[in-house]
Amino acid sequence: MKTLKTQVAIIGAGPSGLLLGQLLHNAGIDTVILERQTPEYVLSRIRAGVLEQGMVELLRQAGVGQRMDAEGLPHDGFELVLNDRRVHIDLKGLTGGKNVMVYGQTEVTRDLMAAREAAGARTLYLASNAQPHDMQTEQPFVTFEHEGQSWRLDCDYIAGCDGFHGVARQSIPAEKLKVFERVYPFGWLGVLADTPPVHEELVYARHTRGFALCSMRSKTRTRYYLQVPAEEQVADWPDERFWQELKNRLPFDLAEALVTGPSIEKSIAPLRSFVVEPMQYGRMFLVGDAAHIVPPTGAKGLNLAASDVSTLFNILLKVYRDGRVDLLEKYSAICLRRVWKAERFSWWMTSMLHRFDDDAFNQRISEAELEYFVDSEAGRKTIAENYVGLPYEAIE
Amino acid sequence: MKTLKTQVAIIGAGPSGLLLGQLLHNAGIDTVILERQTPEYVLSRIRAGVLEQGMVELLRQAGVGQRMDAEGLPHDGFELVLNDRRVHIDLKGLTGGKNVMVYGQTEVTRDLMAAREAAGARTLYLASNAQPHDMQTEQPFVTFEHEGQSWRLDCDYIAGCDGFHGVARQSIPAEKLKVFERVYPFGWLGVLADTPPVHEELVYARHTRGFALCSMRSKTRTRYYLQVPAEEQVADWPDERFWQELKNRLPFDLAEALVTGPSIEKSIAPLRSFVVEPMQYGRMFLVGDAAHIVPPTGAKGLNLAASDVSTLFNILLKVYRDGRVDLLEKYSAICLRRVWKAERFSWWMTSMLHRFDDDAFNQRISEAELEYFVDSEAGRKTIAENYVGLPYEAIE
Repeated sequence: MKTLKTQVAIIGAGPSGLLLGQLLHNAGIDTVILERQTPEYVLSRIRAGVLEQGMVELLRQAGVGQRMDAEGLPHDGFELVLNDRRVHIDLKGLTGGKNVMVYGQTEVTRDLMAAREAAGARTLYLASNAQPHDMQTEQPFVTFEHEGQSWRLDCDYIAGCDGFHGVARQSIPAEKLKVFERVYPFGWLGVLADTPPVHEELVYARHTRGFALCSMRSKTRTRYYLQVPAEEQVADWPDERFWQELKNRLPFDLAEALVTGPSIEKSIAPLRSFVVEPMQYGRMFLVGDAAHIVPPTGAKGLNLAASDVSTLFNILLKVYRDGRVDLLEKYSAICLRRVWKAERFSWWMTSMLHRFDDDAFNQRISEAELEYFVDSEAGRKTIAENYVGLPYEAIE
Repeated sequence: MKTLKTQVAIIGAGPSGLLLGQLLHNAGIDTVILERQTPEYVLSRIRAGVLEQGMVELLRQAGVGQRMDAEGLPHDGFELVLNDRRVHIDLKGLTGGKNVMVYGQTEVTRDLMAAREAAGARTLYLASNAQPHDMQTEQPFVTFEHEGQSWRLDCDYIAGCDGFHGVARQSIPAEKLKVFERVYPFGWLGVLADTPPVHEELVYARHTRGFALCSMRSKTRTRYYLQVPAEEQVADWPDERFWQELKNRLPFDLAEALVTGPSIEKSIAPLRSFVVEPMQYGRMFLVGDAAHIVPPTGAKGLNLAASDVSTLFNILLKVYRDGRVDLLEKYSAICLRRVWKAERFSWWMTSMLHRFDDDAFNQRISEAELEYFVDSEAGRKTIAENYVGLPYEAIE
């Protein structure tokens, strides 16, 4: 077995692993990233596209903000549609100047990959069977296979950035973790198309036929979603049916304005809320989807991974620079405070906007709740401040 | 059968029937109130004690605000306790100057009874078997028995102010009403005692052992509540057990400060959310508990009855003065917009503060929700503006 050595072993080269790696590398802390797939595969995963201000600042801090700042679309608001009523949520006005950036996760990942390559930091793609060991000791390590060889990566700390299905969380003894989960009885059918956006802002529509979201990746590429039953198949949704159903769920003026075109990607994603506590096991730290999943309503998934990255980076920085090893055990508690608030908001947005086969009382309550929140300035402010992202906690 | 005639027949001499009667009488519109019980029985029902500003103003408008203004306690805030953390909700600061008035429903009723007697308006107590008839015609009437005689009360309109168990709603054909209901798996055990309040403001406490509320009727009379299982019996709760359990659920400083004493009333009330739609049937209008029930968390029951009274009074005033009969059919829709927002708030306060035997995910979400709302100024503002009462809709 060949041996490698680093300070922080990062499992997973998605945006959280790459961003953590970049921040640590810039601070002079050595990292090795192990990724099971190829870079092309990682980039092919179509995901989120709305970045909170905190994540935007973190990307700039990591030195990878140039293309985002040039090509990303700052959005100062979004629209909520309650059946046929359109309500503008003025993010900037309601939060004292904050906004969000529309810039695809694929582009974030591409920028981070390029920066890591330019920096000469090590990423091993197609590294299979990664397995963390001895996380409860001061000499943890990760074994894996790469190009037909067995390897051992010795390190000080392990960051599990390998997503919901990854090995990091699964290598923690089950009795050490408490699992919190909610599976929703529907999914999102998403279509990517090279068409101009129907509206300059994102549109979240509550409709008796089900939820719809009009989103975009750029001024020429759109991403639309429809709530569909969990058991639905993509094959049942030819483009024509998708566009017609989307029009059914939009107010007349938006339906009229919708430009349709051939889909260049079409997929169905389940909706899930999931959290494990704690988010660490000895010297291994879970980051992002490895520890928590949110339903996509509210666009919190990638942003929550970024705040975990920020927390872990700032703790490790103080550990290496100032010997503040006392901070290590605080990682999970600091992350979870923000995680649960984002889980709450994502659950709330999902509950408010989707059609549930719910009892009549619950349906009226959720209509009244949404109406109250959009009619009250304080209510709109709670939506806005969560949407742009609650502040990151200082590490002291 | 003897016959009586009036303009508005009011069934029920609780606070909503009496307040409606007083407002109409002052406007020169004749009313007769029919009440099944004696005045003493009506006054013996211990109920709510927190009046929204809108209700306070309505009582003043009705000319019955003198004793309330002299003896009631204006409260500019209340306290939320999350386990051992005390959070002040500054009603006045958060709502731009609004507050609530602590003044018992019994006292409101007493003042209204005295005013009605002084005005010489007719209230028939011990009027049994009241039954509305021909509500779908322009000559509705109410039959009843009084002092051994059968009576018929001819009128223009009927106001059903006779509560949840009353005859008004029950005399509407079931297929004409849509019922929305939620029964909670617990009740409130309430104790009335002649002791000084533990704190100058109301204290709503969320605790792992269950909800507790420290309330008062005056500076020398307190009303405390404990969440108990729905099947609990008053006999199982001698005073000593009640006070000990209350201390268990309060933060240390409040538990230390609690002055106990013999209970002068002790009862268990179930918690229920209930709404019927519509709130009218021809020329009969349902007011307050006859149409909707809220769980008591948030003190909305009596206040919601008052806003129904205000809506019905203002409609009838315009009908009699200006011939605006077009307004009659709008009563239900106008009331229900505010009713559902108050149902929403009462359900939310109940959900946030009580212990449910809920799944682990829901428990964490409700902890995160309450923490978010008390930590955010916008969140506290949503609590405050609902607690002081959302504005009454203008009748135009």
